[in-house]
Amino acid sequence: MRILHHLPLSPYARKVRLALAEKRIPFELRVERVWDRRPEFLDMNPACTVPVLIEETGLAIADSYAICEYLDEAYPDITLFGRTLAERAEVRRLVSWFDDKFNTEVTRNLYYEKQMKRLLGRGNPDSGVIRAGYANLRPHLEYLGWLAETRAWLAGPQVSLADFAAAAHLSALDYIGDVDWSTNESAKEWYARMKSRPAFRPLLADRVSGVTPPPHYADPDF
Amino acid sequence: MRILHHLPLSPYARKVRLALAEKRIPFELRVERVWDRRPEFLDMNPACTVPVLIEETGLAIADSYAICEYLDEAYPDITLFGRTLAERAEVRRLVSWFDDKFNTEVTRNLYYEKQMKRLLGRGNPDSGVIRAGYANLRPHLEYLGWLAETRAWLAGPQVSLADFAAAAHLSALDYIGDVDWSTNESAKEWYARMKSRPAFRPLLADRVSGVTPPPHYADPDF
Ligand SMILES: N[C@@H](CCC(=O)N[C@@H](CS)C(=O)NCC(=O)O)C(=O)O
Ligand SMILES: N[C@@H](CCC(=O)N[C@@H](CS)C(=O)NCC(=O)O)C(=O)O
Repeated sequence: MRILHHLPLSPYARKVRLALAEKRIPFELRVERVWDRRPEFLDMNPACTVPVLIEETGLAIADSYAICEYLDEAYPDITLFGRTLAERAEVRRLVSWFDDKFNTEVTRNLYYEKQMKRLLGRGNPDSGVIRAGYANLRPHLEYLGWLAETRAWLAGPQVSLADFAAAAHLSALDYIGDVDWSTNESAKEWYARMKSRPAFRPLLADRVSGVTPPPHYADPDF
Repeated sequence: MRILHHLPLSPYARKVRLALAEKRIPFELRVERVWDRRPEFLDMNPACTVPVLIEETGLAIADSYAICEYLDEAYPDITLFGRTLAERAEVRRLVSWFDDKFNTEVTRNLYYEKQMKRLLGRGNPDSGVIRAGYANLRPHLEYLGWLAETRAWLAGPQVSLADFAAAAHLSALDYIGDVDWSTNESAKEWYARMKSRPAFRPLLADRVSGVTPPPHYADPDF
């Protein structure tokens, strides 16, 4: 069986789980405690990050960008990127927006600072960093809300990897109770639509020891 | 004419310049002072980063990831990613290694901290950050040297976007005098091969006001 090495709250692994499920590609999850730096895992991915996908052929693919592009090339029937060159450029611009810009400005300051830093042995959370994360989240929710208002889905008429990347980051932050959805109605309405997709269900069922999600986390009508 | 909005030392713009030149796609460069936050530029790229490519059709493509994937789809004759799925996964893993990991650990701590931070009005360089950048560069040069020793090019038998991404970051750091090539002979030998490619010449001719590159910067036999 195809295996995805992951951590339940990793936004990059969540993006890939959504991509696989939307493409109806079956896979098994395997939790990888990256901080243990398992030699066999380092052989598959010297960066020692999740996700890593192991195909049934044995092919190991490290990095969510490499995995998502691979999935679209290997299993093209249901596309994650759209059909025209212009659509695909817009999807990828937004994937980068969330995986690079949103990550640097928000996710790293909240999820990484509060959850991952200690596990990785890199010290204690810094309250200034966390404050900056909350401050940056607001304009990001506004931009997301604006996209959701002006288009059917974030990148255009079809749901795409842009939606999955955005939902991956936001769902990880929502699990740790860091998203105040009341600040933007359109962003909230988009997220409710994402949550009600069948591909999303396994993410809403995730539980991490020591961290209880807020009651609305798993509720599509929050 | 096709236009690339860029900054001469931007590693992401340099990667795209190399990709365009290797694919023999003609283009004109336009310097974009991103810190001016020009409204017309923000319309093309709300992230207000370079590079942005404007095709002759008017199609604007923001973000180096979106641009490079676009170029490979729109102009497939000379591929930047390799032919098999496995080759393409390895190229993309390494592009992410340089554009994400190397950038966070090295480029941001040196090029961004010393050059971009002040221009963007985000304060003065922090000497602790710069020290961390130098410390992180060493193991990265070792990994690069190890790849260059065990393969013809970084990702395998053919030159690829992995080489261009790596050379883009290293050439920007080399311009500001931050790379001690004597620490790794194989990395140095690989970089000499990159520098002697015709696509590299325009990068070696770049000059930025106020920063003089070291004498070896433009010399392929350094
Ligand atoms: N560029 C990688 C980033 C993956 C990443 O940062 N994963 C985090 C979890 S969200 C991780 O494994 N971190 C371990 C570490 O930073 O050492 C990708 O897209 O897959
Ligand atoms: N994900 C973007 C990153 C581009 C980027 O960070 N560009 C820098 C120059 S190297 C920039 O324009 N920075 C302006 C800013 O950070 O505001 C890409 O791949 O194109």
